Amino acid sequence: MHDSQLAKRSRGTMLRLAGIALSACFALGACASHEPQASSQPISASTPTAAALPSWQDSAARAAVLKFVADVTKQGSSTYVPPEARIAVFDNDGTLWSEQPMPFQVLFMIDQLKAAAPHHPEWKNNPAFKALMAHDNAALAKNQNALLQLLETANSGMTTDEYDESIRKWLASAKHPTLGKPYTDLVYQPQLELLDLLKANGFTVWIVSGGTAEFMRVWASEAYGIPPEHMVGTEEKLKYEVRDGKPVLVRQTGFDFIDDKAGKPVGIFRAIGRRPILAFGNSDGDREMLEYTTGGSGPSLGLLLHHDDAAREFAYDRKAGSASLDKAWDEAQAHGWVVVSMKQDWKTVYPALKTSGQ
Amino acid sequence: MHDSQLAKRSRGTMLRLAGIALSACFALGACASHEPQASSQPISASTPTAAALPSWQDSAARAAVLKFVADVTKQGSSTYVPPEARIAVFDNDGTLWSEQPMPFQVLFMIDQLKAAAPHHPEWKNNPAFKALMAHDNAALAKNQNALLQLLETANSGMTTDEYDESIRKWLASAKHPTLGKPYTDLVYQPQLELLDLLKANGFTVWIVSGGTAEFMRVWASEAYGIPPEHMVGTEEKLKYEVRDGKPVLVRQTGFDFIDDKAGKPVGIFRAIGRRPILAFGNSDGDREMLEYTTGGSGPSLGLLLHHDDAAREFAYDRKAGSASLDKAWDEAQAHGWVVVSMKQDWKTVYPALKTSGQ
Repeated sequence: MHDSQLAKRSRGTMLRLAGIALSACFALGACASHEPQASSQPISASTPTAAALPSWQDSAARAAVLKFVADVTKQGSSTYVPPEARIAVFDNDGTLWSEQPMPFQVLFMIDQLKAAAPHHPEWKNNPAFKALMAHDNAALAKNQNALLQLLETANSGMTTDEYDESIRKWLASAKHPTLGKPYTDLVYQPQLELLDLLKANGFTVWIVSGGTAEFMRVWASEAYGIPPEHMVGTEEKLKYEVRDGKPVLVRQTGFDFIDDKAGKPVGIFRAIGRRPILAFGNSDGDREMLEYTTGGSGPSLGLLLHHDDAAREFAYDRKAGSASLDKAWDEAQAHGWVVVSMKQDWKTVYPALKTSGQ
Repeated sequence: MHDSQLAKRSRGTMLRLAGIALSACFALGACASHEPQASSQPISASTPTAAALPSWQDSAARAAVLKFVADVTKQGSSTYVPPEARIAVFDNDGTLWSEQPMPFQVLFMIDQLKAAAPHHPEWKNNPAFKALMAHDNAALAKNQNALLQLLETANSGMTTDEYDESIRKWLASAKHPTLGKPYTDLVYQPQLELLDLLKANGFTVWIVSGGTAEFMRVWASEAYGIPPEHMVGTEEKLKYEVRDGKPVLVRQTGFDFIDDKAGKPVGIFRAIGRRPILAFGNSDGDREMLEYTTGGSGPSLGLLLHHDDAAREFAYDRKAGSASLDKAWDEAQAHGWVVVSMKQDWKTVYPALKTSGQ
């Protein structure tokens, strides 16, 4: 790839990462749900896992999942898949936790940028920075490139240990702008149950995110019960250095690899070396991952989460900018992917709050 | 990184990958061993694993390994490391199997190049190709860049499935030029025992190679008992495509990431997300990996294999071109890394040949 192409791709992803949904969809009211057609395939299932997925409605989507798990674990059947090939891949933002008003990693990056501002008096006249501080979304939309440059450079020069610590600190205090909860409370309860079901049935579960593995590892192992080595993401440039006698990795500007859209099958192949048999996403950024997963020769299952629940979470699909579910939705029918309606298929969205002392 | 820097680094690694040892060391007699100083640390060990590592001499090197394994598995001791943090990383070429006269992946690439030649009449006048066909190492050394270009482009356009099949075919028939054995017979028996010992003691073992994970995955899972997802390597560019209705990954020219020297700690951080506690290498390409591994706060062990055994394998170290053990050897003393002498510390080098019917 030529330098200019790489720059274009990097920018494209930062745009997605930066959810420049900003311009199209910051006021979430504008992202209404269209053509709800979730869970349209009637699947008769009578599996031995009747108690599984308690936060899922007893719907066709749940039945499809249970049937698939039963099929691939049934020894001696033509649909049996040995445990080492039971690879499941999940997108993160919008699939395992919320992603509005924009992916939480981007909200973190913006907060980092604001925190670093006192050390950068030169930003005062930067149009993107001014727009950001003034919450002027129209101006921000006009100065996306300048914003991206700021976001990319804000944390370069930090070691990975320092960066991880800054993520940890942010997560401990930051709250979602409209839901008012800590971000790690915004994981989806029905998905936690699905992860447990898959693990209990010999699946190895991987997260394949447009964000970075480093951002996820700080909190996602505990949140999802997935080990850090099973998180694949966009790869920021890092440089090995010995600093004050200690070997460290130092953050650079830019990316070696963009794990989004057509990058996801590449990221999967590199990290896992096997084609998954189950993929769960929620936007066009996951389309190629689902195609790749369901394009193998054996049994496979593709799933898309449809955000159609403005009351409990958010409602957005075809016109949600970088988080759009549009082309992938069109393909779902042709490929037999299951579209899961948050509104119709999930009894609950977020985990019940822990009471103190528990 | 700028385009020109990336090109320079890619070239540097292809040179290493292509072991342009070619020029310095193709006649292996020129690579005599200097200053053998292996296993100089006396370590008194009385571990519960007296029967472990049967192909290792009862030497200080073996004792150091056994002591480390005993230390980190001893519950309640200050040296105890929980299983999830028992990460061991091994270089592949020259550490787990032989690498002379040059890394076997390069020999494969050269054979592929020769096989493709009839379809490329334009190569007839390429000075590198001519030198290759004439076994003219002096001319080859003068035309390294041209050779690299040929090697990089020879397999581009193939899908990963086609490429894997070509590796499989090659391994099934190709034999080592001087040892006359299939390449997969050239894994080191003492290292197979070490891998088993580590796995039996709760370690997760990863291969971290300057070659590609894809090349290793075809044979190394079976050879070493290491799953494909635990192989980290240099990353060639791949492109996702739907070909004749089937989703495939197509090989491109060039690299996204070079997993060698200072790249190895980056590759480890990205794939594993944790600092290993044991690293085993054999050349300066592994120096930073050992530094990074032994630079953490807890117990750790760095190991270097010294190729000093011209009778049973090869003897090369400080002046072996891209496979040199030079700077890393100098650092071993300062960091307390264990230098394992193939000649003195290993009873056998290669596994006993299987007799037919077994």
